[in-house]
This record gives sequence, structure tokens and C-alpha cells, in this order.
Amino acid sequence: MAEINRSWVLVQRPVGEDFDAALKLQQLPVPEPAEGQVLAKTLYLSLDPANRGWMAGPTYIPAVPVGGPMWGGVMGRVVKSRSDKFKEGDIVGGFGSWSDYCVLPADQTNKIPDTGLPLTAAQALFGGAGGTAYVGTIDVGQVKAGQTFVVSGAAGSVGSLAGQIAKILGATVIGIAGSADKCKWLTDDLGFDFAIDYRHENVRKRLAEIAPNGVDVYFENVGGDVGNAVLANLAKGARVALCGLVSQYNADNNPVDGLNLLPVLLKSGTVQGFILLDYLHRLGEASSKLGQWLAEGKIKYHADVVDGLENTLTAFKTLFTPGAAHKGKLMVRVDPSAN
Amino acid sequence: MAEINRSWVLVQRPVGEDFDAALKLQQLPVPEPAEGQVLAKTLYLSLDPANRGWMAGPTYIPAVPVGGPMWGGVMGRVVKSRSDKFKEGDIVGGFGSWSDYCVLPADQTNKIPDTGLPLTAAQALFGGAGGTAYVGTIDVGQVKAGQTFVVSGAAGSVGSLAGQIAKILGATVIGIAGSADKCKWLTDDLGFDFAIDYRHENVRKRLAEIAPNGVDVYFENVGGDVGNAVLANLAKGARVALCGLVSQYNADNNPVDGLNLLPVLLKSGTVQGFILLDYLHRLGEASSKLGQWLAEGKIKYHADVVDGLENTLTAFKTLFTPGAAHKGKLMVRVDPSAN
Repeated sequence: MAEINRSWVLVQRPVGEDFDAALKLQQLPVPEPAEGQVLAKTLYLSLDPANRGWMAGPTYIPAVPVGGPMWGGVMGRVVKSRSDKFKEGDIVGGFGSWSDYCVLPADQTNKIPDTGLPLTAAQALFGGAGGTAYVGTIDVGQVKAGQTFVVSGAAGSVGSLAGQIAKILGATVIGIAGSADKCKWLTDDLGFDFAIDYRHENVRKRLAEIAPNGVDVYFENVGGDVGNAVLANLAKGARVALCGLVSQYNADNNPVDGLNLLPVLLKSGTVQGFILLDYLHRLGEASSKLGQWLAEGKIKYHADVVDGLENTLTAFKTLFTPGAAHKGKLMVRVDPSAN
Repeated sequence: MAEINRSWVLVQRPVGEDFDAALKLQQLPVPEPAEGQVLAKTLYLSLDPANRGWMAGPTYIPAVPVGGPMWGGVMGRVVKSRSDKFKEGDIVGGFGSWSDYCVLPADQTNKIPDTGLPLTAAQALFGGAGGTAYVGTIDVGQVKAGQTFVVSGAAGSVGSLAGQIAKILGATVIGIAGSADKCKWLTDDLGFDFAIDYRHENVRKRLAEIAPNGVDVYFENVGGDVGNAVLANLAKGARVALCGLVSQYNADNNPVDGLNLLPVLLKSGTVQGFILLDYLHRLGEASSKLGQWLAEGKIKYHADVVDGLENTLTAFKTLFTPGAAHKGKLMVRVDPSAN
């Protein structure tokens, strides 16, 4: 195996948004899989705001070790298997690293079936994005037909699916995003009822106009000013599915622009934090339903694909840039031959 | 009825903590009850942080009208009844005003039974304080034996009862209060396991020492820095019973020191806001249990009684003074002859 294995190594924990100092592209040996592992050639990486937390310290998983490759969701082609579960050539998805080659534990890795869809669908519709949108909307948000559903980070991988799921379930759906272009995409392409551009509109006032009876379910991805504007418009008994707080991920130990929960108190609301790891038992149903809705033309996904492992860092930083152009699921095509 | 009827009139909505400009003691005619109402001579007023909200604008109830008497929880003796439900001489509790005489709607007013206890028990143990502590701990917080329970505003009317209820239910109980004297009262008199003086101790670090496995249930009365310190110590699946945010009640429309919900997300926690009006059906059980626990010597209440309607405003302001001396239920004895 004389191949080059480039890898984004976490050389120090990030400070604020200085990811350039934290991550360096280095050449490492191609790793050897141990018993129960497979070696995969990376086809696609998934880039997500939550990656910032993994770099910074322990979250719901341990922190990425300084000096080692940055972790991430990957899809790859098995090139060496030391598990009965997989054979060479299998396309698999799991928890790998930002590298040309990843070693994956077989017991936590899944074979990606050939559905006839582009491979990007496995990360952009199914997988973590779709699973998170599904359980956040249904299990946590508990949205019902006729309710008003608001999602922030609406043009992102999870938000864009969450809004469409709520719409399928019969809710009036309002998305909040960071540009007129994204808002147009939400309403014209994805069928959201309304979209609010938080960088150019007063979210609190606009919501009060659009949803005079208040917001029944809020799928929260961002926090901060946007979060407070939505909370100020909650309906009695509202539910907040707390999925992300991307506005504060780069705050480190500095004080954050926290959320004013007085409306949650006065409206007898519930804020429920969740992570996908708590809902692994729901992923089968989620994939099945998402696939059905796709086939029925009720849901769309969008993979925003950046080519080249060397462009990973530049792409990652756009996740924290308000008004950045990307829509849907941000992915890096590591192997140019991947479909 | 040639009696004097003094009344605290809301002459303007409060700005920050300037209650002196908002409330003036005036002489008003003794009101006449309409059909279905009773006129009561006020014996006791209940003073509560929530009163600030009622002065400022609509909450879960409409705002107190400017130019009218300030509303409040009262106990009084019926002096004129225009309802079959009450007769002259009955001692009643309900929603009246900060006045020598109150008109009360019979259908929302309760007769206070003679239990042999001082009348103050009706507000300091039963009524709103006990009901809120009971449903907040049991229905909302859902505390279980063996769990770690934290309450802020622990020396207040609700907090002091909530901690004792959690203790009866088998939890390890930690109170957070604003002076060494209050902390001593919580541990030595009320049986809390630990107490933290937030004005002189680092709450976040102290909690990490006392509760290394994290906080399972947090009964939140204050918000702000104290709230954030507790949230930073949540256990997996923690529940937060959101009862009050007294640290921000005087903020009006200014930005508040909001809560960082990242730990709620990472720990899959739930924050549930509640108001007692949603739990009126639970008050019968609450009173029955509280009375039983009192008789068994398992729970104590403390009425902090200020004499004289004219001293209401001075007493009320102590509710927003960190480290103020009062403990338990703050009440004003309006009629000097009340027991």
C-alpha cells in the first residue's frame, strides 16, 4: 500500500474561529486495520457544526486527541477487511477521520445499500442529517397537523429536512436562514410556507405578523439573537427541540449570548435537548420514511459537494459564516471517482 | 362603612427597580361588592417576585391597570357577602389587592379552614407557595429517590419548601441562597444536605465537588449566573423545573443575562416552564400531603411577617435585593389583630 494518506490533524484545540491554527493537512502512513476493523478509502466526508465541539473538548463523545486525525462522518470503499461483516469493495458509512484512508470499527459501521440514488443521498438525506431531522421533529418536537413550526438554520442539512418533514405532517412551516437566496430556496424549492432572512429582517416582529397565534414547535439549531426572537413568540405549551446552538460554538469559555427563558416559563413551554445517539433505535424508521417520501416526491435533499480533501478546512469554516452560500448538506468529495 | 381604605395604586409601570415611582399609597373609597362578590377586610398580603411581572405588562394574566390598586394574593375576613358561598366573618383567601379592603370574586376565592395552625400557614405552607413547590418538584421536576436535586432561591417561600419535599422523596438536596445565614438555616433547620452561598462561593466549582455525578433535577427560581452555574453541572437526562427567573425580572426590555443551554443539549436535558394556574387540579393533593408532612414533623414553613400596609413597598423591594435577610414566605400583616 504505497498510497499517499493525507490527513487533517488536530494540532491544537481551536480558539474562537481560528481553525487554521488548529488543523493542519499532513501526510501520515496508511493505517493498518486491527481485528474487527476495516480500512476504507474515503469517498465523502460529512462536515457539520458539531465537529467544532469534538475538537474543543469532551461532549457526548470524548474530545478528538490533539496530534491525531480530526474525526468525522465518512463514506468509504473497503480496501482491506478484518471483519466477517464486510468485504473488499463494500461501500460503508461510519465514524472515521478527515483523511484519504480511514480505519473503521466494523461493529459501528454500516454497509450503504445500492438504492439507485447518488451516494451523496446517504449523508444528505439518510444518516445523521435525516435521522436528526426526523427524531427532532417527530419524537422531540412532537409536531402535529395544524401547528406552527419554526426551524432556524433552515437552509442547513438538518433544518432543511426538518421543515419538510413538519410540512408533510401538516404543520405551517417557517424557516429562518441567513440570505434572501436561501429563503427563496426554502419557499420555492422545498415548499416552506414562509422564510425569514435573519440578517435583513426583524425576526421577532416578522414572526409576530406571520404567526399571530404563536409558535407551537421550534426546532432550534442556532441560539443567540435568532433563538431569543423565536422564544419571544412561543404559543402556550410550546415545545422547543434543542438540536444545535451554532451561534455559540466558537465562544469557548467566554460568556455566550444566552437564551432568555422567561417566555418558556410564562407559556409553560418545554425545551428538550437531544443528540442522535439517544435515538439510534429510531433510525430504521427514519430511513424508511425518508426513502418513501423521496420516492413520492414529498421531500428533497441537497448535497453541497466540495471537491478535494485539501479544501475541507475552507469548506468547514463556511458553517460558521452567517450568510455563507452553502445549502443543505455540506460534504467533501475526497475521492474524485466517487459518484 | 366610614373606614379608611388605604391602597397601593400602580401610578405607572415600573422602570427597572424604581418601585417608588410606580406605586403610591393612596386613600380610596371602600369598594362595594357586586353580585357574586364579597368584600373582605385584608388580614395578610402575600408578596412574591412574580408581582413585578404583573405590574409591568401582560404575563399569564393581564397587566395590572395603571391607576388602579396593585393586585396580590390576600387573606381577609368577609365583611359583606353577595354570594351564597360566603358569610360575614368567614376567613377567605384569593386574588385581591394591596389594600385595607378588597373585593373578591366568590367563585375564585376559597374559605380558609380552621386547622389549628396560625393563619400565616395558609400562605406560607399551603396556597401558592406550597402548591408551586409541590408540583414543581413532583410533576415537573419528577424527582426520584437517590437523585441529586438543586434549588436556587432556596431560602425563599417556594425554594425552601421544594428542597424539603425533594428530601422527603429521598433525594440529596442542595440549596443555593444569598447569605451564610440563609445557608445555615437551610442545612441546620430545614435538613438540606448542602447549601451554597452564591454571593461568596463559586457555585459551578462547588457543585462539581458536592455532586460529581451531576445534577438530576434543578428547580430554577433565579436564572442568570446562578442558573448557568447549575446548568454547567447537569447530569445526563437532567430535568429543569423552570419556576422563576427573578434575576431578570427588572430588566424590562433590556437584554438579559440569558441561559447557556449547551449543557442541556449535550446532556439531553429537559427544561420545562410551569405556572401554578396549569396545576390547579393538583392543589388538593398538595395541601393534603403538605399538611400530613407538617403533622409528621417532616416539613417546616417560615412566615416572614412585616407589619403594616404602609411597609409593603419596602418589604417588596427586599425580594430583589441579593442577600436580603428575609427567609421563607414574605407577608404583610395588614390588620394588626390578625393571628
